[in-house]
Amino acid sequence: MEIHQVQQRLILTSRLDGMGLLPVKVLKSMSGSTLVALDPIGVNSGDWVFTIANSAARSAAGDDKILTDLTVGGVIDCWPPQNLT
Amino acid sequence: MEIHQVQQRLILTSRLDGMGLLPVKVLKSMSGSTLVALDPIGVNSGDWVFTIANSAARSAAGDDKILTDLTVGGVIDCWPPQNLT
Amino acid sequence: MEIHQVQQRLILTSRLDGMGLLPVKVLKSMSGSTLVALDPIGVNSGDWVFTIANSAARSAAGDDKILTDLTVGGVIDCWPPQNLT
Amino acid sequence: MEIHQVQQRLILTSRLDGMGLLPVKVLKSMSGSTLVALDPIGVNSGDWVFTIANSAARSAAGDDKILTDLTVGGVIDCWPPQNLT
Amino acid sequence: MEIHQVQQRLILTSRLDGMGLLPVKVLKSMSGSTLVALDPIGVNSGDWVFTIANSAARSAAGDDKILTDLTVGGVIDCWPPQNLT
Repeated sequence: MEIHQVQQRLILTSRLDGMGLLPVKVLKSMSGSTLVALDPIGVNSGDWVFTIANSAARSAAGDDKILTDLTVGGVIDCWPPQNLT
Repeated sequence: MEIHQVQQRLILTSRLDGMGLLPVKVLKSMSGSTLVALDPIGVNSGDWVFTIANSAARSAAGDDKILTDLTVGGVIDCWPPQNLT
Repeated sequence: MEIHQVQQRLILTSRLDGMGLLPVKVLKSMSGSTLVALDPIGVNSGDWVFTIANSAARSAAGDDKILTDLTVGGVIDCWPPQNLT
Repeated sequence: MEIHQVQQRLILTSRLDGMGLLPVKVLKSMSGSTLVALDPIGVNSGDWVFTIANSAARSAAGDDKILTDLTVGGVIDCWPPQNLT
Repeated sequence: MEIHQVQQRLILTSRLDGMGLLPVKVLKSMSGSTLVALDPIGVNSGDWVFTIANSAARSAAGDDKILTDLTVGGVIDCWPPQNLT
C-alpha cells in the first residue's frame, strides 16, 4: 500500500458502468505524482490516506467486479510523523 | 487509476485476435511517458481520461478474456484543475 | 520481492474491515520511497525485511480475502551486506 | 500496454519448462529500459511493437498456464509518429 | 520479464511458511535497483538471469500457492551483448 494525500473529487463527463457509484478522488503521492482512486470511506481534501492497489482494490471497493485498480483503504492519523525524515 | 491525455489512434500492422475490436489509443501520462490503452468509450485526441490497469482493465474492456492491461475508464471534465499545482 | 527497512507502526483513524487485524507498518525502500505493508510476523522498527506484493501479498497475510497489496514476508540477517556496493 | 522496439532474440542457457516454446525477445522501452517478452507473432529486430503485461500476458501467449508477465501483442505502423513530440 | 544479475543468496532470520523451501536470491537490475526472487533453477552469483513477476512468478516457483512475486525464469548466455548499447 502507499500513502497519499487527497486533493479533490474528480468530475467525470462519462465513466464505465462497472465502476459503480463510489466517489472518485484525485490523490497526490509522496513523490508528487497524481493518481485516481475509488473512495469507499468518504475522505476529505487534505486527508492523508493509504491506498490498496490491483486485485485487492476491487475487493476493497466492496465487490470483486468493480472496475478499479486503486481504492482508499483508510485514513492516517498524525502524518507526516515528526520523527520521520 | 491514472490520468492521461489522448494523443492519437494507433495504427497496427498486426495484433493478436484476443484483443478484440476496440480501438487502440496512444496516451500521454502526466509525467510525460507514453502508454497504449483499449478505448471502449470512444475518446478523442486531446481528451483527458483516466485509465484502469491490470485485471480490472480486462473487465473494463467488456470481457475478462480481452487481452489488455490498460483500458480507458472515463473522460474527465475541467482538467487540469486551476487550483491544483 | 523487495527489501525494506521498517520505520514505525502506522496509526489509523479508520480502515476497511476487510484488512483484518494485522498491524500496519510504514517501510522505507532502498531507493528512499515510503510504503505501507501488513505485518504477519511482528517486525520491529529498524529491522530489514523483504516484502511480497500483489496477489501473493493477500495469501501471505493469511487469507486470500485480506485487503492488501504488500505484506512483510521475512526478516533479513546482516543487511546491508558488506560486500555489496 | 506499452510501446517497445525489438532489439534481438535472447539466447538462453536454461529456462523453466512452463514458459513453452515461444521465442524470447529483448525489447527497449521508449524511456530506454530493457525488458524481455515472449513473442507469439514473430517480430523482427527494429520493429516497433506494443506489449501486454501481467495476467493478460499469459493469455496472450496462447495459454493461461504459460509463465510470462510480458508478451508482444502487435506490430505498430509508422512509429514514432511525426506529429508526436 | 526483466534482466537481472545475481548478487548473493539471502540469509533470513525468519520467513513465512508459504514461501516454500526454494533459495532466495538478491538480484541487481540493469538500472541498479536491488530485488529479491525465489530461485527454482539454482543460479550462481554473477549469472545473468531473467525474472518473471506477479501471478506467473507463483506458478514459476512450482506451485500457485507459493508466496512470491518474482521468480528466476532462466539463465542468459552472452549478456550484455556486444551489439547493444
